[in-house]
Amino acid sequence: MQTWLDTTIRALNLVETMEQPNGFTRLSFSKEELEAQDVFKELATSLGMTVRTDAIGNVIARLEGRNSGPAYAYGSHLDTVTNGGGYDGAAGILTALGAVKLLKDRDQTLEYPLEVICFVSEESSRFSMSTVGSKAMAGMLTEEQLETMVDQDGVTLGDAIDEAGYDPAAFREAERDADELRSFVELHIEQGMRIENAGKEYGVARAIACPIRLKLTIKGRAGHTGTTPMNQRQDALPEASELILFVQKQANALNESADYPLVATVSTIESYPNAMNVIPGEVVLGIDIRSVSDALKEQMEAAIDRFISDSSFDIDKQVLVRNPSVTLDATICDKLMKLENETGYTCLPMESGAGHDVMNMQTKWPSGLLFIPCKDGLSHHPNEHASLQDLEKGTELLYHYMITAGR
Amino acid sequence: MQTWLDTTIRALNLVETMEQPNGFTRLSFSKEELEAQDVFKELATSLGMTVRTDAIGNVIARLEGRNSGPAYAYGSHLDTVTNGGGYDGAAGILTALGAVKLLKDRDQTLEYPLEVICFVSEESSRFSMSTVGSKAMAGMLTEEQLETMVDQDGVTLGDAIDEAGYDPAAFREAERDADELRSFVELHIEQGMRIENAGKEYGVARAIACPIRLKLTIKGRAGHTGTTPMNQRQDALPEASELILFVQKQANALNESADYPLVATVSTIESYPNAMNVIPGEVVLGIDIRSVSDALKEQMEAAIDRFISDSSFDIDKQVLVRNPSVTLDATICDKLMKLENETGYTCLPMESGAGHDVMNMQTKWPSGLLFIPCKDGLSHHPNEHASLQDLEKGTELLYHYMITAGR
Repeated sequence: MQTWLDTTIRALNLVETMEQPNGFTRLSFSKEELEAQDVFKELATSLGMTVRTDAIGNVIARLEGRNSGPAYAYGSHLDTVTNGGGYDGAAGILTALGAVKLLKDRDQTLEYPLEVICFVSEESSRFSMSTVGSKAMAGMLTEEQLETMVDQDGVTLGDAIDEAGYDPAAFREAERDADELRSFVELHIEQGMRIENAGKEYGVARAIACPIRLKLTIKGRAGHTGTTPMNQRQDALPEASELILFVQKQANALNESADYPLVATVSTIESYPNAMNVIPGEVVLGIDIRSVSDALKEQMEAAIDRFISDSSFDIDKQVLVRNPSVTLDATICDKLMKLENETGYTCLPMESGAGHDVMNMQTKWPSGLLFIPCKDGLSHHPNEHASLQDLEKGTELLYHYMITAGR
Repeated sequence: MQTWLDTTIRALNLVETMEQPNGFTRLSFSKEELEAQDVFKELATSLGMTVRTDAIGNVIARLEGRNSGPAYAYGSHLDTVTNGGGYDGAAGILTALGAVKLLKDRDQTLEYPLEVICFVSEESSRFSMSTVGSKAMAGMLTEEQLETMVDQDGVTLGDAIDEAGYDPAAFREAERDADELRSFVELHIEQGMRIENAGKEYGVARAIACPIRLKLTIKGRAGHTGTTPMNQRQDALPEASELILFVQKQANALNESADYPLVATVSTIESYPNAMNVIPGEVVLGIDIRSVSDALKEQMEAAIDRFISDSSFDIDKQVLVRNPSVTLDATICDKLMKLENETGYTCLPMESGAGHDVMNMQTKWPSGLLFIPCKDGLSHHPNEHASLQDLEKGTELLYHYMITAGR
């Protein structure tokens, strides 16, 4: 199995070796993403699946069961960030195909149809908007998004869909009816260290922490660094520093007292005019707050609001994103956790700090999310790595889920 | 006199009104700087002065005295930053010409020659290098600077000199012998609020605070903001924040205990990768430290060194600039302060937090620096303003210095 996994992960990544100093760059709706999808189509066909591409570019490989009816679906994506790794997304596609191969190798037939879905455009690197394909399938994509989301060259999402060979006006045809699928399960690399730190072998996410994202503008007063005495300044950068440290301290404090983890990060900073001889007159901070508990995210936001109202500076707050966190289907989570019994692998029940296609699928179909470890928790990086052992475990987990799901 | 000052400041700025929403943009060696210099030449000629331009573009207007010998020189510059004000530099040119006009109006002849020098390219906006003209005159400009300093379009300083109509290979001809000048006095707007805050009418700088500039790189570890727990992070931005607050606190403490003022500013910050879903992996800070006391600047730097060695982060320090501060000529300073007696205006002995052409002239000739107030201390800004009353006082101060300097 590991030989097949090794060959196939390289095939899906269009490379001879996974050691790529510059990593992998298959942006949304790019030629490279289409090429990787073509490999997926060939692999699925060779496993006896029928393959179709929907109106927006999701590739759906299907294996009929003994009975007709709604399908059990699996899948992930093959696009990457710029200079990303070859496992984020690809590991989910690989292990789902691997599990279908095991069904064949072990002469297992299924009662109901099975699908492996390769979602198009999961990463937000190109259009600052993630999970386009699964949004379209779940009926969450809007015409406005196609017109307003643009890449750095000014190409709209709609134009990119057109250039990839699909009709952007037909994107609604990618939406599927609720009764087409029974459920959806995604396998993904963890992109963190929790499974390894807990001494476990795989993780099952019970919920996905979707972010609150804030943009704070701290307004001070610019001035000459040489001629403005220290006691006559309104320097925006030290106040921004107090806020950055406050966010870190509050997040740590909330983690100690709460039932769920919370992370809060001042991840972006821009200072104006950012010139060596001018006191910072304005600083803009981007804050990313995540927890599967929306209440906890709101507590963090409320603490920031208190900082703002207590500050002697004029601080403007803008909410960029306020996405309620997604609770995944409890029954599916239970089944995924109980795969411990069939496989002997140890499971960590956990949460997902990052968004995945499964969060959109869950809005319409009962869904679940499996994690396998990745080396040093590293992701979106050329050194991103999942071992063949862990990929094999992931394949076995999906295989056992497939043959027990309908029971 | 105020009518003449009002007409002439507008003439030197090439405008009908000083109310310019976008301010003034006369970059180094630009067509606009040359046009303003042409106005200066006409004005000086009309006051009976002879005018010449040196090898690099400094314009030297000269009025002969009853005796020959080294001249008493005055002056400033006419270039500006982008969207700057119409008084930084221009006020010094205006008041020096105004004082020559007063000599004529009041039938005063001088024993020795007098010069008003309009230095070319004082601002660092275009080439990240200030006071090019006075550096050339004092013999401090180097061939390397002509070749390596480039503007944002990739034009070298040498090419810009060429385009302005001068031979860059001949720049050393602009250097003057020590025995050509007796002294140099510059009048400049204060670019701060100290004169006004002290309830005085003009300032005399005893020294110029030249900067130590540091670039600090704080190396943390990037990671996914959603999947990296708070206690497993090495976020470079909170550490940078601690350092920013430390610099401010130390500068305040040194000000309380020291004889001279010190300012220290973290004026630039760049965070990498500066993406909403990535923990800051590296932060680069630019720090500007100024005091007329080099020892005080070094104490501030030593405190930063202690922070670096105490930090649990890897912090790299690079010294960008280490310019010893310049003490101006004590005799000239005394004379400038004693103009209180002749004029009745009250004087604040002070330091200059910003660099000016006079700092280069002092390396070769005894030099002094007069400040007049400017509104709200604002400079390098469209709203930069010096009142006609203050410009008139500045003119009277230079006039009285001119007629008493040789005594």
